[in-house]
Amino acid sequence: MNKKDITVNKLKSLGEIILEDVEKNSVPAIKVPSRGTSNIVYDEDKRYYVLGDRYGRRSLGNVKQISKIAQMVYVANFCKDLVRRGKTATLREMYYVSEGWDVEFGDQQESNIVGEDLEVTLGMTREDLGLMPEEDGASVYGNITIQDDDVEINALKAGKSGYTISPTIDEVQFVDHDVKRVIAVETMGMFHRMVQEDAYNKFDTLIVGLKGQAARATRRFLKRVNEELKLPVYIMNDGDPWGFHIAMVIISGSAKLAHVNHQLATPDAKFIGVTASDIINYDLPTDPLKDIDVLRLKELSKDPRYRDEAWQMEIKKMLKIGKKAEQQSFSKYGLEYVVDTYLPEKLEQME
Amino acid sequence: MNKKDITVNKLKSLGEIILEDVEKNSVPAIKVPSRGTSNIVYDEDKRYYVLGDRYGRRSLGNVKQISKIAQMVYVANFCKDLVRRGKTATLREMYYVSEGWDVEFGDQQESNIVGEDLEVTLGMTREDLGLMPEEDGASVYGNITIQDDDVEINALKAGKSGYTISPTIDEVQFVDHDVKRVIAVETMGMFHRMVQEDAYNKFDTLIVGLKGQAARATRRFLKRVNEELKLPVYIMNDGDPWGFHIAMVIISGSAKLAHVNHQLATPDAKFIGVTASDIINYDLPTDPLKDIDVLRLKELSKDPRYRDEAWQMEIKKMLKIGKKAEQQSFSKYGLEYVVDTYLPEKLEQME
Repeated sequence: MNKKDITVNKLKSLGEIILEDVEKNSVPAIKVPSRGTSNIVYDEDKRYYVLGDRYGRRSLGNVKQISKIAQMVYVANFCKDLVRRGKTATLREMYYVSEGWDVEFGDQQESNIVGEDLEVTLGMTREDLGLMPEEDGASVYGNITIQDDDVEINALKAGKSGYTISPTIDEVQFVDHDVKRVIAVETMGMFHRMVQEDAYNKFDTLIVGLKGQAARATRRFLKRVNEELKLPVYIMNDGDPWGFHIAMVIISGSAKLAHVNHQLATPDAKFIGVTASDIINYDLPTDPLKDIDVLRLKELSKDPRYRDEAWQMEIKKMLKIGKKAEQQSFSKYGLEYVVDTYLPEKLEQME
Repeated sequence: MNKKDITVNKLKSLGEIILEDVEKNSVPAIKVPSRGTSNIVYDEDKRYYVLGDRYGRRSLGNVKQISKIAQMVYVANFCKDLVRRGKTATLREMYYVSEGWDVEFGDQQESNIVGEDLEVTLGMTREDLGLMPEEDGASVYGNITIQDDDVEINALKAGKSGYTISPTIDEVQFVDHDVKRVIAVETMGMFHRMVQEDAYNKFDTLIVGLKGQAARATRRFLKRVNEELKLPVYIMNDGDPWGFHIAMVIISGSAKLAHVNHQLATPDAKFIGVTASDIINYDLPTDPLKDIDVLRLKELSKDPRYRDEAWQMEIKKMLKIGKKAEQQSFSKYGLEYVVDTYLPEKLEQME
């Protein structure tokens, strides 16, 4: 059975549960796993956040929950249509479509939550259900050939900005590749630097431009190349708490998305800087840490995802020197330095 | 002479002006067109903002200006190297590179201004000079074939998110196309809707996803397809002052970039909604105007770019009904409505 059929069946089964209850003359109810903070747990084995085993019940016997169940059924039906017809919609579009339903949403926040309820109840992502985030993902440059519907595209042949990961990245097949690793960088400035300095050749690598905080599609792409193609994934970000955390969300997922981290987290991905040690060793141009940076670093040091000794040491070191540095700061030594010197040294250390 | 040689020559001539002054024993000075508000003029014939004819002088005879001229010479030399070697750098990279110069910049603001000085003095864009904005441009989907260095790519064959306009879009050649128009939309949600509903076929159109405020590269792309390929350009945005203005900056340029609007503005591009009239005629789901929306609409009504009668009427109407609507709000009538009903009606009115 393909994914499409599995999804349609799961959605149908939700309706059948309710119908069965009705036929048995019992009050229909749906069990929805809790997404409250107390039910979000860092899983030491899996190395990412997961949901615990607490459930809530949405019962038609509870007056307050009647419209919630009705909304859920409508959304499930809407998604079933989407998946069957091979279409997608944004949460925003669904919100407007609901204007024609008998149970409207008060605001989009409300319809988003019902979408999440459905994700977590069925154990599928919203992308599986046809509900796509609006934003596209990262850019990919390098020698990988991808099949996207009837289009076959090599990410060296998509133009200077590379292949753009669309929200439907799960439907893409990896046809062929000739690379040994993946290097993801925070900014498009660094992406273009890597392309210009021939880094994809020098390091036999795919170059991924994260465009800041990685979109869900980007995280799926990195996870898929890591697991399906067995490619090591390296992440190079700014040397500040925000850069650290962009990397960490790719590595160990976010608490907010604990219910889908099994699809999004890439625990084997590695951070290759900029670290506080790099700031010292490479004598990089820096900015002083602001109060908010210090605060954030202290938060990170207590976060279970940063329990690892190397992370703890780097956070402490950054707090001690009171400085942060951007990935572009290697340009102090010339535009080529980051590709000719820094990355080779870092990769050698890590491989 | 190709563009590269022209740029290198212009950059060299800047140095030569200074050398000549030195040889003649006169104090070297450079004339830099003023970018102050009083020198920014809306040109009724050109239908965009231009710079007036006021100049400032940067003279080595003025102690305060010595470092400014030195910075300008360093930046010009840096750009000359970039262009010669066929490379680009971000303003951020240049800022860090300047750490190795004898005249550093106090902060990036200062180096950005010197970059602008050079643009306006030479009458070229920063892209011509190899200084690239960090952000990539819009996505393009549809039947156009582009030559980007040694890569030939058709924008129907670049994946679901289409071809991404990179900051180097000026170096791209248009090889072939089979479309009659271009429709640009504000959000990637609407872009993907148009792709899914086969709008590129139905309307013989390129679909461009603006991703909000259009990047400079996107504006260059729209101008080039409009002028070089004689394709009419339509812009569909949210029905609110911010959506209006995203369209207007594409059409008539911005005051801030008056010195390069001749390269960026597309005065013949047309706004195809969402207008206040559309909100009424299509009975769209709306949100009430916030104070800041009202304020902004009143500003727009006094802006010379909105002098046109149709714009004045729409702004008045929006203030009167006190409501705004997003482009996605057509989903009230089903996901297909915007492509099956709204756009055909609008295009018929305008063509």
